[in-house]
Amino acid sequence: MKHLLHEIRHNPMLWLLLFVPVVFLAEAFKPGAYTLLFVLSVLAIVPLAALLSHATESVAAKTGDAVGGLLNATLGNLTELVIALTALRAGQYMLVKASIAGAIVTNTLFMLGASFLLGGLKHHTQEFNKVGARLQAGLLFLATVALLVPSAIAKADSGPAAAFAQELSLGLAVLLIVAYGLGLLFSLKTHRELFASAEAGEAGEAPWPLGVALATLAGVTVLVALVSEVFVESVQEAAKTFGMTPAFVGFIIVAMVGGAAEMTAAFSGARKNRLDLSVGIALGSASQIALFVAPVLVLLSYVIGPSPMGLDFWPGAVVMMLIATLTAALVTTSGRSAWFVGVLTLMVYLTFAMSLYLLPPGLR
Amino acid sequence: MKHLLHEIRHNPMLWLLLFVPVVFLAEAFKPGAYTLLFVLSVLAIVPLAALLSHATESVAAKTGDAVGGLLNATLGNLTELVIALTALRAGQYMLVKASIAGAIVTNTLFMLGASFLLGGLKHHTQEFNKVGARLQAGLLFLATVALLVPSAIAKADSGPAAAFAQELSLGLAVLLIVAYGLGLLFSLKTHRELFASAEAGEAGEAPWPLGVALATLAGVTVLVALVSEVFVESVQEAAKTFGMTPAFVGFIIVAMVGGAAEMTAAFSGARKNRLDLSVGIALGSASQIALFVAPVLVLLSYVIGPSPMGLDFWPGAVVMMLIATLTAALVTTSGRSAWFVGVLTLMVYLTFAMSLYLLPPGLR
Amino acid sequence: MKHLLHEIRHNPMLWLLLFVPVVFLAEAFKPGAYTLLFVLSVLAIVPLAALLSHATESVAAKTGDAVGGLLNATLGNLTELVIALTALRAGQYMLVKASIAGAIVTNTLFMLGASFLLGGLKHHTQEFNKVGARLQAGLLFLATVALLVPSAIAKADSGPAAAFAQELSLGLAVLLIVAYGLGLLFSLKTHRELFASAEAGEAGEAPWPLGVALATLAGVTVLVALVSEVFVESVQEAAKTFGMTPAFVGFIIVAMVGGAAEMTAAFSGARKNRLDLSVGIALGSASQIALFVAPVLVLLSYVIGPSPMGLDFWPGAVVMMLIATLTAALVTTSGRSAWFVGVLTLMVYLTFAMSLYLLPPGLR
Repeated sequence: MKHLLHEIRHNPMLWLLLFVPVVFLAEAFKPGAYTLLFVLSVLAIVPLAALLSHATESVAAKTGDAVGGLLNATLGNLTELVIALTALRAGQYMLVKASIAGAIVTNTLFMLGASFLLGGLKHHTQEFNKVGARLQAGLLFLATVALLVPSAIAKADSGPAAAFAQELSLGLAVLLIVAYGLGLLFSLKTHRELFASAEAGEAGEAPWPLGVALATLAGVTVLVALVSEVFVESVQEAAKTFGMTPAFVGFIIVAMVGGAAEMTAAFSGARKNRLDLSVGIALGSASQIALFVAPVLVLLSYVIGPSPMGLDFWPGAVVMMLIATLTAALVTTSGRSAWFVGVLTLMVYLTFAMSLYLLPPGLR
Repeated sequence: MKHLLHEIRHNPMLWLLLFVPVVFLAEAFKPGAYTLLFVLSVLAIVPLAALLSHATESVAAKTGDAVGGLLNATLGNLTELVIALTALRAGQYMLVKASIAGAIVTNTLFMLGASFLLGGLKHHTQEFNKVGARLQAGLLFLATVALLVPSAIAKADSGPAAAFAQELSLGLAVLLIVAYGLGLLFSLKTHRELFASAEAGEAGEAPWPLGVALATLAGVTVLVALVSEVFVESVQEAAKTFGMTPAFVGFIIVAMVGGAAEMTAAFSGARKNRLDLSVGIALGSASQIALFVAPVLVLLSYVIGPSPMGLDFWPGAVVMMLIATLTAALVTTSGRSAWFVGVLTLMVYLTFAMSLYLLPPGLR
Repeated sequence: MKHLLHEIRHNPMLWLLLFVPVVFLAEAFKPGAYTLLFVLSVLAIVPLAALLSHATESVAAKTGDAVGGLLNATLGNLTELVIALTALRAGQYMLVKASIAGAIVTNTLFMLGASFLLGGLKHHTQEFNKVGARLQAGLLFLATVALLVPSAIAKADSGPAAAFAQELSLGLAVLLIVAYGLGLLFSLKTHRELFASAEAGEAGEAPWPLGVALATLAGVTVLVALVSEVFVESVQEAAKTFGMTPAFVGFIIVAMVGGAAEMTAAFSGARKNRLDLSVGIALGSASQIALFVAPVLVLLSYVIGPSPMGLDFWPGAVVMMLIATLTAALVTTSGRSAWFVGVLTLMVYLTFAMSLYLLPPGLR
């Protein structure tokens, strides 16, 4: 508890934790005020995600390299997973898929681009471990291809096609999880020396004791789940009030909220000229969502969803994921960066964000 | 005037200037002879473009590095801009778009490929500054992505989609111009040392005095505008006589005519084993058209066009631009070249040219 | 004959030659037993392909570098060519096209990926000549683009489009063969030093005398042609029995059967830490099929086919070829490999194989 309080005192973002009880109060007394609930739930999820991320790291630090790396890799996107699970249970499959695609695109383009830009504004040119970046980009490319195939075929949306897309999605989900597991084996075990520089501690802060960390992990996950419920219920209504399309909300807002904690870490790494860290977080997080979160959601949809969910995305989402992956491969291939590389990457993201913002609802 | 005459005496291409008055005479006396007018206007535009290009460089040389670089970058494609503006005013939006896409593809594939081939036939292998090439390829990729998005969505060509595509095109045009400006800031100011070798003088010729250069710039621009009018009016009719499809004319003929001056410079650089220069001209010119000429045309269409023009292209054109960009990224990534790399790049161009030549008109 | 017998004794795969007479017997006595005939013909083609490959190498070794390289490059995919010719004569254009696309995808993804994996399981990291790999990937990319264009346009499958696609296919076929010829000139003559390490002998076995080799080449080609006839006749019926879609058969089964001999060579190279060899065989074979076998089949369809065959593929096949090429470019660009790179490449292949296996017949 002392550790938690110490953390809260030193990290201004955590003051937002105040909004957690406020959300629940607001939901009890004003269940119809969607816009208010939406804003409050966003403000509450951000600090919870930061706590979750610190707790995961603390557990990882205590349990040693191999198990720790595994934990970090598996729970690193716990917030996204919990939000998506809540949407899945509510049967909001469009929101689930938009948030998956959006998280991949946002991490690849916005988190990476902003890291390059913020780092480049402080340092003339920056270097990073291109071997690690290439592997991450490769994993991401594979995942995007796997997500592309059912979408490409499900377009012909007749009866047999739908059944086929579902069967294929199931097979691909298993394939992706296997690839993810082998990737962990590769980067944590057989070839860990290639990824050396990224493991040098994420924030320099002292880890919590194991008990505190595990308790925080459990407690905060429950809180995230509860707040997510408010978030998922209110987001579509609130979006209408703000004049946003559902596509924009799923792709941009949810992804930004879910990734806030990682973004803070990635940006601070870039400012400290530790771009390896930023690239690792951005691409690692994106490939984790594609290779682990997305297939897990497909598999869980058979258990907790109203009906099985497939891996077929809206064609525009597939194009965006593919372009995001290609952009990441292009900008990381040289292992060097300057501010304009960040601008380019962010511009691609802005292009997408603008299109989604202006997209008429009927075109989705 | 002496400088101008000296230039004309030493550059055989400029003897074609004779055709400038001939065009105007022909138009006055034989306004319906489209094929004749087309051939004459092509023959007249080529030397005017060369003059324009030399005048721009002279002004750039006199005004110092930063302003000069800016001028070179802005006026480098003045011929293409003036031709496109003429077509814009005439409401020939299809020709405008075809000439934009065609200039990008022709500069990226034909100018680059022919430079590699011509250089490679003389030198066994050639090296060039791959950092600059990568940046140009990156800019070009971003621009192509921005041009791709409205086209991808405008396909669903219903009522709301059309309005949306227009709004989006406007936003993207602003975005592209901002990216272009930041790219200039990067390459001319903050990180100019990365682009060092390309600024070492374009043709080795002595620059003109500032007054002559400015007067030439103004006068020749007017002439290009006048001849372009004849060109735009006659090109479609003439194409029919030659059995060419409108797509082929816009993509290949207009792009070749508009880029003749830059091509001469790029090819002569390649023969002199200064491939940095050739790659810089080819990719720089292509990204300038995508990031500056295209959005400027969109913005100007609100002022001088009969109706606003969008950034939505024919899907085939988008595919060609995307493939051209990928090809450029692929062949420049290693910083080395040999004749066969040129052959490969030209073959991709030939594939496109052949398709466009054979394309039945209804399929556009 | 002694050499042949010696070869057969030392290479267990050649014991499968026993199945050659068995196929013909089975066809004579049980012409309707398609499943049996299919299995037998597969078992018979595999050793014949291995013999063909060894005979070609022996002729190449005897005739010196330039002619030998040419022979190796031209006859290296003789098995695939003969099978495709048999299908062409039978008018089974869908099977021909599926086997072309499948051979490209299988060689690029499966052969390359399995080589990386098998090599990586034995050696921690492996290096290979990235210049050669890049050139092959470049050639392959060009070929895929050329194959993409008619498919992209032929989608609009009206009357004029069909005629146009045919004309275009003819032109592209000539273009591809020219590019292939120039590529040979480049790699065997003007810049052979760049490809040095790949020519160091394929299997270390002693070549046969020229007479034996030529006789084997001729005789075995005839046998392959005869067995192919049984194979082509039985494959579609047998597929139904096994519950495979025609797409899966053409793409995966035919490609695996036709490429069995090259695969053995590529895999054994990878195990011996001679990855140059494996990459050269995999990418070289894929680009040979795209640049030589495919256009030759188009040209021959005018002579021996019931009607001209075009280069227009099923859109899904084009997407797969394009992704396979991009994957190959991505994984070979660094010139280094480890087991997980192989896993990634194989996963992309598995994604495709799974989609094709599950694809409902009507969606092709």
